[in-house]
Amino acid sequence: MDEFELISHYFTPPNSEADIDRGVYAGIGDDCAVLSVPPGYQLVVSTDSLVVGTHFFANSPADDLAWRLLGASVSDLAAMGAIPAWISLAITMPEVDHDWLSLFSSALHDACNEYGIQLIGGDTTRGSLSLTATVHGWVPAGMALMRSGAKVGDLLCVSGTLGDSRGGLYLLEQQTQDDGSAMDSVSSDAQYLLDRFYRPEPRIALGEALIDTATACIDISDGLLGDVEHLLKASKVGVEINADCLPYSAALGRLVGNKQAISWALTGGEDFELCFTINPTNELKLQSIRHETGLPIRVVGSITSDPNDRVVRGIDAEALSGYRHFSQPANGRPSKE
Amino acid sequence: MDEFELISHYFTPPNSEADIDRGVYAGIGDDCAVLSVPPGYQLVVSTDSLVVGTHFFANSPADDLAWRLLGASVSDLAAMGAIPAWISLAITMPEVDHDWLSLFSSALHDACNEYGIQLIGGDTTRGSLSLTATVHGWVPAGMALMRSGAKVGDLLCVSGTLGDSRGGLYLLEQQTQDDGSAMDSVSSDAQYLLDRFYRPEPRIALGEALIDTATACIDISDGLLGDVEHLLKASKVGVEINADCLPYSAALGRLVGNKQAISWALTGGEDFELCFTINPTNELKLQSIRHETGLPIRVVGSITSDPNDRVVRGIDAEALSGYRHFSQPANGRPSKE
Repeated sequence: MDEFELISHYFTPPNSEADIDRGVYAGIGDDCAVLSVPPGYQLVVSTDSLVVGTHFFANSPADDLAWRLLGASVSDLAAMGAIPAWISLAITMPEVDHDWLSLFSSALHDACNEYGIQLIGGDTTRGSLSLTATVHGWVPAGMALMRSGAKVGDLLCVSGTLGDSRGGLYLLEQQTQDDGSAMDSVSSDAQYLLDRFYRPEPRIALGEALIDTATACIDISDGLLGDVEHLLKASKVGVEINADCLPYSAALGRLVGNKQAISWALTGGEDFELCFTINPTNELKLQSIRHETGLPIRVVGSITSDPNDRVVRGIDAEALSGYRHFSQPANGRPSKE
Repeated sequence: MDEFELISHYFTPPNSEADIDRGVYAGIGDDCAVLSVPPGYQLVVSTDSLVVGTHFFANSPADDLAWRLLGASVSDLAAMGAIPAWISLAITMPEVDHDWLSLFSSALHDACNEYGIQLIGGDTTRGSLSLTATVHGWVPAGMALMRSGAKVGDLLCVSGTLGDSRGGLYLLEQQTQDDGSAMDSVSSDAQYLLDRFYRPEPRIALGEALIDTATACIDISDGLLGDVEHLLKASKVGVEINADCLPYSAALGRLVGNKQAISWALTGGEDFELCFTINPTNELKLQSIRHETGLPIRVVGSITSDPNDRVVRGIDAEALSGYRHFSQPANGRPSKE
């Protein structure tokens, strides 16, 4: 057994008896994990990679990477309305770094506990640093929230605040330009934005609550405009977004000004909030979901019938550059591509 | 959508209507795939990475890599006695190389068809070349072949021939030492060994046939001694192996001589044959499984009661160097560690 096989020991869950029964008949340690999906449920599966130099800086703290990987992966489960169940993890690293592994695996176990997801296996190999997670969840059969169900007249909603992760990345980029060293002390605004970048909170409870309310759902990983585009394509509908309604944090506004904050709320990726559509008759239900989840949920637009409609009201044209499908309204009427 | 998102189009299965119903409610294209496990079955899951410089040479043909990835991954399903169902695939590559992607994805679809496994999603990112597959299969509930069930007196069996993949690697290493160019023409022996390296055949039908016959099973990825070690540890038993019974191919014998061939049959990895244990009363059944699968199956040893027993008969001591648990018998009696 070489060192790379030995490091799998870091990933044996500290408690063999999980608090929550996740149907794990055999976890780490055989050729495969053996698992049971509860009767009446379907399985949902998603795979995400985080690669050094592409998704994170080489000096990123190992514990932050674990939280970021879990947050981003589990967010895909939340976007389907699923209950997190299992995760398998492939780690490629240039050499066995026990300090890094200790910090990473400890944070990984914390994140797994936080999200109620159980590590069931994986692979550790030598190579350039990268992390690939395949997450599994359960959803009542036939009830998964798809991108494809948005209907004309539906309200377009988003949870939380948008653009924060982009703000955190901006701070990290600034730091890299300065001297490359870690920030010793940062303001509470900066810490908030860095946490939003490194430790996104997957909206699991919101996804579950939306299962019989939302008509379509996606998580915001590419940025609102990019992800809405996926939802519109899948649903074959258009949209009109009101930029004045976009939720962004006071911290982001203070860091870069309101104009930039709105632009990043539209285009900044990796906030891992949920973007979903509901029938207007469900607005009251939305109120109770806000109360239940403790999350701000904002109506930011509405679904239109023309699949080419991509209108954003209340914003400068320059903020939409790079998003060729989207435009401002012409003469107050929705413009067509 | 950037180029790395676009390449996901290479991986959309050519036929949306699969020949075999694999319970895929939604495949590639949403936040998650949505899947159904048949009633009465458990799910088995395994993750494997192939990394450039660690598992393969940078000049490896893309189609061979696809077959190797699928063969190695699906072999873990076979070792559980499972029916292959789904695969998700993370590809990290330094730049979008359409020739490479075209060759790779075409071979991937062929391999998926060959093994009856459906591609359900994945991730494509920029970075050093690596491939991570998470494969899923189904097994009748409670019937998965584990490593842990070997009993004292059981026969230790292996399928096919061992050491061939090590022979293929040897040829590739020779070639790299020569001039680094691809081999233009190779002998049929060499081609056979290279195919065994690049295109291992997962023993799916054998695994399924063993479900109610074998007491324990593992696939040979680390080499027979390494994998038997896993099986013994999990089953808390010992073993006595008869090296004279080890199956190796005539091609390997001709390439490196019989002595080296036996050594590689013991220690060479990545043959992806199955190694399993059966109660001696099942030897007749083994005969019908040989007939059913068309595979040679050889009894190569037997399970002993002392968990420290690691005896190999009929081989020079030097062939066991590096395998400190294993030894030759002392005075004809099994030696203890």
